[in-house]
Amino acid sequence: MDTIRQLSISPNDGQVVQLAGWIKNIRSQKKFGFIDLQDGTSFTSVQVVFDDELVDFSNIAKYRVGAAIEVQGSIIVTPEAKQAYEIKAMQVTLLGDSLEQYPIQPKRHSREFLRELPHLRVRTNLFTAVFRVRSLTAHAIHRFFQDQGFVHVHTPILTSNDGEGAGEMFRVTTLPLEQVPKTKAGDVDFKQDFFQVATNLTVTGQLHVESYLPAFRNVYTFGPTFRSENSNTKIHAAEFWMIEPEMAFADLQANMDNAEAMIKYVIEYVMTHAPEEMNFFNEYVEPGLVEKLNKVKTKPFAVVRHEEAITLLQQANVTFDHSPVQGGDLATEHEKYLVQHFDGPVYVIDWPKDIKAFYMRLNDDGTTVAAMDLLVPGSGELIGGSQREERLEPLLARMKQMNVPQADLEWYLDLRRYGSVIHSGYGIGFERLVMYLTGVENIRDVIAFPRTVKHLMY
Amino acid sequence: MDTIRQLSISPNDGQVVQLAGWIKNIRSQKKFGFIDLQDGTSFTSVQVVFDDELVDFSNIAKYRVGAAIEVQGSIIVTPEAKQAYEIKAMQVTLLGDSLEQYPIQPKRHSREFLRELPHLRVRTNLFTAVFRVRSLTAHAIHRFFQDQGFVHVHTPILTSNDGEGAGEMFRVTTLPLEQVPKTKAGDVDFKQDFFQVATNLTVTGQLHVESYLPAFRNVYTFGPTFRSENSNTKIHAAEFWMIEPEMAFADLQANMDNAEAMIKYVIEYVMTHAPEEMNFFNEYVEPGLVEKLNKVKTKPFAVVRHEEAITLLQQANVTFDHSPVQGGDLATEHEKYLVQHFDGPVYVIDWPKDIKAFYMRLNDDGTTVAAMDLLVPGSGELIGGSQREERLEPLLARMKQMNVPQADLEWYLDLRRYGSVIHSGYGIGFERLVMYLTGVENIRDVIAFPRTVKHLMY
Repeated sequence: MDTIRQLSISPNDGQVVQLAGWIKNIRSQKKFGFIDLQDGTSFTSVQVVFDDELVDFSNIAKYRVGAAIEVQGSIIVTPEAKQAYEIKAMQVTLLGDSLEQYPIQPKRHSREFLRELPHLRVRTNLFTAVFRVRSLTAHAIHRFFQDQGFVHVHTPILTSNDGEGAGEMFRVTTLPLEQVPKTKAGDVDFKQDFFQVATNLTVTGQLHVESYLPAFRNVYTFGPTFRSENSNTKIHAAEFWMIEPEMAFADLQANMDNAEAMIKYVIEYVMTHAPEEMNFFNEYVEPGLVEKLNKVKTKPFAVVRHEEAITLLQQANVTFDHSPVQGGDLATEHEKYLVQHFDGPVYVIDWPKDIKAFYMRLNDDGTTVAAMDLLVPGSGELIGGSQREERLEPLLARMKQMNVPQADLEWYLDLRRYGSVIHSGYGIGFERLVMYLTGVENIRDVIAFPRTVKHLMY
Repeated sequence: MDTIRQLSISPNDGQVVQLAGWIKNIRSQKKFGFIDLQDGTSFTSVQVVFDDELVDFSNIAKYRVGAAIEVQGSIIVTPEAKQAYEIKAMQVTLLGDSLEQYPIQPKRHSREFLRELPHLRVRTNLFTAVFRVRSLTAHAIHRFFQDQGFVHVHTPILTSNDGEGAGEMFRVTTLPLEQVPKTKAGDVDFKQDFFQVATNLTVTGQLHVESYLPAFRNVYTFGPTFRSENSNTKIHAAEFWMIEPEMAFADLQANMDNAEAMIKYVIEYVMTHAPEEMNFFNEYVEPGLVEKLNKVKTKPFAVVRHEEAITLLQQANVTFDHSPVQGGDLATEHEKYLVQHFDGPVYVIDWPKDIKAFYMRLNDDGTTVAAMDLLVPGSGELIGGSQREERLEPLLARMKQMNVPQADLEWYLDLRRYGSVIHSGYGIGFERLVMYLTGVENIRDVIAFPRTVKHLMY
């Protein structure tokens, strides 16, 4: 069987081909008709011309959108048309009919409407483009790290960690919810649960993956993570994928260099491997997208210390809803101003320790940590990372200050007891990256079956 | 900084190098000593020679196993020794000490002992080798599918599906277990749960991924799956990763061809990219492993119909604990006999419909389905797959027979209503594959932080 992807490389006039695929559109007149055929191998469909020389012309003319067909025909090269070639049908066979009520008709459907059809919406141009780019993005990330010798560690999804404040967690259990067993003291009796311990869905693989550094020097995770946050926004999902690289002998600068190289590599990869899809986004989803990404690919990322960033914001000729405060967090409006000011991605580094996680390395000033957030136009924070606190005593002190229970993390502290070295890492939200690459603004539209608060289908 | 991986390619006598890594072993005498240094870039460590010409010789001699050091020294090529070169130290700096009680000492530790140290065991040769091969295996699988244009679909981890009998499931909830809210009728009030619906951890992504065929023709999933089975065996884990490719216009034969090519590709990939690790397994874990894999790589897989397989077993000159019965399942002892009989991997196909899943395609005989199980020496069933029932009516009939509730799967049935085509797919347990490739016999030893019944650490 031939495929549209193969044929498109160099279509030969007169060549007899056999294709199988799905009808995206069909228009027929008295003596001839046109089918837009999509076969899953290419973003572009091919036009099939059929006429009343075919014995079953009248049947073919009634085939419906969404139906699966097989076509035998010959290539007609059409150098003056938009498409380089079309197929003159010699035979069209129905493989699988499509019922009248097929909801994906060749017209504009709202994204809200399509979200209620997660099993069918991928058959539209937008979602076909999004999910091929999502797949290529995932592969590009693997290639970037594997080519440099990073080892992919599958950190656990189920964990007894409580996430150290990284976010609200889902509980996982086999206890019967109808009647949860209790101890004599009246507490939930987790001894009767599957793992005999309270179990959650992971919010990060970072702590676990750090333990793999002494074997492999450079490692990364790439897996699903979960937050049970009650945030019904365009950028929050309860289930999303995250990439978390971790590098031994790497300081904050090396960390930033790696993340920048990774972003640039991924942009290059998807632009090379999905040019039709990227042009589609550029035309219909985010005008200027390709130019934006080309700029990111070539220009060095800016860097600004958190303190300087706040000063910049305070001196800006802008009225913010939230006044920027030294020592405080950045609001979305602040992030927007900064990426505009720096005209592209910018790292904000050296954050106040009190608003960052316990494991980040304390700077010599005693008040900031060696953290980095990468802000990008459109998506806000795309990457968060830090140099880790490799020294046992400062780490213990920070845990105490931030009420992180030591007993649960003795294993993590062991990593500081046995051959600790300076190391750094970052986390990148995979869906945020796909949104950034495609221009799609709602996270629900870059996840095949999105899970958000009060919403889970199938 | 230099790395052992780089240096090992072509070590130059006299070249001054700088390495950082961890002490695997240290032996010192009065005037000189040896350090086995591992830097995470290579399975092989490098020998560092230090002597009393160094000012702090006596300190260095006391460095402990597990400590992190930096070494400046010159390469001495040693063509007659086992290692091609060693490093004559000019300076050795302690980066991170290792406490006296470091449990990973340079001696043989039992795997049971190491299982209780999931955060440290990767520093042993066995686990360093296993987890690099695991990472390479994952990447090989992605490359195999991506190079053929398959699209990676991230099917959901959280699902309202109940798994259609594929296995016992974990419940995911944010309801307070101390006091689970109930409806007036006394049932658990899932309307108050995070998703407002009873939610489970997935056991398979197959049904979801089938919906992506009409957009991409060939797709695959690669993600974690979960079973809350109370099976405390060497081959069962509660959390494991699975690869599930699905192909449109593919019958059972095409399905088998793809799986066979995939296995052969992966073997070739890990042997090329981890020759030292594979030799280690061959020597210390499964003698004959490399020969076994080379044979699998070159020899076509055998195929036997289930009915023929049972006949073979019944005629075998062997007393089985479980008598093989026409229409019945294969026990482990039967699988072992079959792989011995066929001297390598063998597909058992055309299984009795009553012992297989509802979505498998009914053969024309009306009693068997177009299913395939790949049996391999050592690991039993490595792959399970089938051609799927693409016809709506037979599918509905099978669901009714097997008490699969139709209402929950209307979305899946839609795929048969709108352009259904013949298609096939399979699932491969990722950990089983890693076990097969490494010779490691216990699934707990190929998972970084294994989760099994009554056992979850960190």
